[in-house]
Amino acid sequence: MMIENLLKQHRDFVETEIERLFPALQNCNYAVVNEAARYSLTLGGKRIRPAILFEFCKLCGGDIKNASNLAVALEMIHTYSLIHDDLPCMDNDDLRRGKPSCHIKYGEDIALLAGDTLLTEAFGIAAKANLKSECVVKSVEYLSNLAGLHGMVGGQVLDLSFEKRTPNSQELIDMFSRKTSALLIAAAVLGCFAADNCDNETVNAAYEYALNLGLAFQIIDDILDCTADEKLLGKPVGSDQKNEKTTFVTLYGIEKAREFAAQYTQLALNALNYFSGDKSNIVALTEYLLKRNY
Amino acid sequence: MMIENLLKQHRDFVETEIERLFPALQNCNYAVVNEAARYSLTLGGKRIRPAILFEFCKLCGGDIKNASNLAVALEMIHTYSLIHDDLPCMDNDDLRRGKPSCHIKYGEDIALLAGDTLLTEAFGIAAKANLKSECVVKSVEYLSNLAGLHGMVGGQVLDLSFEKRTPNSQELIDMFSRKTSALLIAAAVLGCFAADNCDNETVNAAYEYALNLGLAFQIIDDILDCTADEKLLGKPVGSDQKNEKTTFVTLYGIEKAREFAAQYTQLALNALNYFSGDKSNIVALTEYLLKRNY
Repeated sequence: MMIENLLKQHRDFVETEIERLFPALQNCNYAVVNEAARYSLTLGGKRIRPAILFEFCKLCGGDIKNASNLAVALEMIHTYSLIHDDLPCMDNDDLRRGKPSCHIKYGEDIALLAGDTLLTEAFGIAAKANLKSECVVKSVEYLSNLAGLHGMVGGQVLDLSFEKRTPNSQELIDMFSRKTSALLIAAAVLGCFAADNCDNETVNAAYEYALNLGLAFQIIDDILDCTADEKLLGKPVGSDQKNEKTTFVTLYGIEKAREFAAQYTQLALNALNYFSGDKSNIVALTEYLLKRNY
Repeated sequence: MMIENLLKQHRDFVETEIERLFPALQNCNYAVVNEAARYSLTLGGKRIRPAILFEFCKLCGGDIKNASNLAVALEMIHTYSLIHDDLPCMDNDDLRRGKPSCHIKYGEDIALLAGDTLLTEAFGIAAKANLKSECVVKSVEYLSNLAGLHGMVGGQVLDLSFEKRTPNSQELIDMFSRKTSALLIAAAVLGCFAADNCDNETVNAAYEYALNLGLAFQIIDDILDCTADEKLLGKPVGSDQKNEKTTFVTLYGIEKAREFAAQYTQLALNALNYFSGDKSNIVALTEYLLKRNY
């Protein structure tokens, strides 16, 4: 229960900061795109990325008050990717977290522009972070690299290509390490930057942690897609099977996939050995993500 | 002719720098999105924004070698906006600069992601600019503000809303100042930053110049849409009329629109009075844009 309180605390903080840094527009002719962006940005979710960012900030001795711009920026980038993913030319999903997806509610044109807004404004909000300029510049660089061509977008392209051919497990891991891990890596690394820590070894340890956490996270997602309670999950189960997607479950079966998830979780925990601060929260968070049922 | 040589020189430089900063990927499973992004990025065009950026850098006593990251980033953001604009859910344009638009050549999904890639990578390339960290941070902030919610994207939303109702001239100017002027303002202001000049008065003068230049530029575009040689223009003429768009031409007629363009050009030239350096190039460029026939 303690970990759920911690997650709620981080979630409340980042949601307050979203209101401050990306507020609703009043009396503005183009408010609809802000409304659409905020609709998706405030649909809820576990806010895992901000939680990781805040915990790595604390682990590096920083104050999470200075981390809120980076956490909000990251959540905006995550949200833009969901909006564009749901569009008819991509996954064509009508539902997101049990609610109409952005383009169902606002139309495709506004949803496209809402995603573009979130992505664009995220970098401006990151640039305004209350940190040393060197750390701000590093944050923008990592956000771009991890969300961009060789990160999340590259992962999306690989995922699309796997609709046409079946990947092997190495290709699947490569895709997940971009599509899922990349933004978790951004969370961990930007957490260090938010503590004004740009040291290479620290960044490498944070990177290693989140890469493996992301792989575990994705495997659990694939397992839940077969086994979860639809109401808890907030989306239809069995969609991977319906879409004939290759996942860890289709390659190895559920039991073996669970073992892989546990192994990647262990690798993530091992990477934390580098840090000398109090790791209890981040360890609890890591184990919670392995055991979640939605 | 001298001005055309100058433009060619800047164009050649920025195109060399595009190859260096956003090169083609080899042997990569997700290369298609890089190829699609580069297809649109290298389709040509006058490269007005980089030219303005370089000239403001020189006007502020800077070296354009230090400006190339910002110029490439800006051209990438301009290109992303064209790719997303051409998508079926937006303007549904099959042609861009006389060639198949990105989604016609690569499909809608890859075109969407190519736009996302360009926007995301642009901020990373800007962050790696060889300038003082403070100027890099300012550049990212201005790029985001001018391309984002209150800048280019806001302008797009206004433009979409004018398909449903006829704007008055003040609303039209507000839309153009976002949709067209915003990235020209980014060009002028980032040019100052590239010379390590973040002084407020300098930024204001650059802003004022480019805001008015953008309005003149847009009015000329609207005039050319009625009067240009289709082959020179690289797109069908008469599209505004076909789409029943409100423009300066539909509100005031061609002759009066020409007068407005000349007036905004004069306001742009007046704003240059603030600068004490050699303004001959930027003045020539401004007058060239007023008199262009494509």
